Amino acid sequence: MKESKVRLYVAQELGAGQTVPLEREQAHYLFGVMRLSSGDRLAIFNGRDGEWRAEVTEAGKRGGVLTCLERTAKLRLPPDLWLLFAPIKKARTDFIVEKAAEMGARRIVPVTTDFTNSERLRQDRLQAHAIEAAEQCGGTFVPEVADLQKLSHLLDTWPDDRNLMFCDETQAGAHQGLDAAPRGPWAILIGPEGGFSDAERDRLRVAPFTHVVSLGPRILRADTAAVAAMTLWQAALGDWRQREGAA
Amino acid sequence: MKESKVRLYVAQELGAGQTVPLEREQAHYLFGVMRLSSGDRLAIFNGRDGEWRAEVTEAGKRGGVLTCLERTAKLRLPPDLWLLFAPIKKARTDFIVEKAAEMGARRIVPVTTDFTNSERLRQDRLQAHAIEAAEQCGGTFVPEVADLQKLSHLLDTWPDDRNLMFCDETQAGAHQGLDAAPRGPWAILIGPEGGFSDAERDRLRVAPFTHVVSLGPRILRADTAAVAAMTLWQAALGDWRQREGAA
Repeated sequence: MKESKVRLYVAQELGAGQTVPLEREQAHYLFGVMRLSSGDRLAIFNGRDGEWRAEVTEAGKRGGVLTCLERTAKLRLPPDLWLLFAPIKKARTDFIVEKAAEMGARRIVPVTTDFTNSERLRQDRLQAHAIEAAEQCGGTFVPEVADLQKLSHLLDTWPDDRNLMFCDETQAGAHQGLDAAPRGPWAILIGPEGGFSDAERDRLRVAPFTHVVSLGPRILRADTAAVAAMTLWQAALGDWRQREGAA
Repeated sequence: MKESKVRLYVAQELGAGQTVPLEREQAHYLFGVMRLSSGDRLAIFNGRDGEWRAEVTEAGKRGGVLTCLERTAKLRLPPDLWLLFAPIKKARTDFIVEKAAEMGARRIVPVTTDFTNSERLRQDRLQAHAIEAAEQCGGTFVPEVADLQKLSHLLDTWPDDRNLMFCDETQAGAHQGLDAAPRGPWAILIGPEGGFSDAERDRLRVAPFTHVVSLGPRILRADTAAVAAMTLWQAALGDWRQREGAA
């Protein structure tokens, strides 16, 4: 019997004594790649019920069964933050999804803009990246990756109570900042490599829910901008804040 | 004659009327890949003399000559910030160097720690990554990538006037913060994937130049931590500050 450091996302409900049947791919990973066998322990989570220590109770080439022993961590929900971004090259899109899961976004929304090239996106592949990031980084929550949608449509139906942090690369040095910004539900919008169109920029600037924030005097790639923007937000309004009572 | 958007780093001095002979690889990139020819314009920089508009005055398969027309941007030096990091997998190490150049580090220092695996590093390849990031992101400065060195040696010879931001993943929520930290020369230290050893952590904690800073409640990969730490530093102490007079 070994206590492994493996963390595995599963879809099923978790609870004391609950058994979790494994799919073929999961069995291959646990028993083929990670060399676990019957009696070995690992950590599992489903994004809802926290993290559980589980034991391998059946191990086969095409399947297997885990049994939940006890809960080792509560569900830790990130703040109510959406990350909106315009998909870029495949590797950098994957990277943005991974980083959003690490940095604590609740929902990831790929959007098409006037200057976006890509019209298609494999939502399932991106969701798998978010799951892998949660497995690697000790997360108990997996952000939902939404289907690709038009930015203009999203703005048409924007929820009244959600603020939007608009990272406008043409506004270096002229931002409002987040220190005095309201708490509550937020979204961050990261532009495409070619920037936003004038029409988009005008619409975003006058929207009552928009807060324009600059990401410094240098031009950042979209993936860098995503991490930097989430850092500023988490430090000012999210769960990186030093003192909950402040501001 | 076309005004291209190409930005090229060159090693030579730049000044009005100055000619810049091209190496074979540069000629291949400009004339083979980017399809420039005689009379076309591009931007060049050398990390010291700002950005210059240049004209192609000779174009050949194995070489060529550019001539400087006029300066289009002054040298923009980033703040005096070093990024120290323990090299990780190749792709993520490349990424950290790229991000340090984008985020505005002055110097990039790969270090070996008690838990670092890699003992070798291609400094020239990493330096090329920093140059490429500056070319892509409109930079006029290229951070120097130092040779790999031992963290313990670096701490033995640490300069008196340089503060160190120590991102300690075991200190979530207990950080000092940067708001009251002194300005001046700084370094950021990002740990290896296995964390720091107890001996390293003890030494860093008691050093008079160390400021312990937490990067939130979730575990971040080293490349994410590097971007997040540089964001916090630039926003609090660097050139992302909203009001120069504040604090």
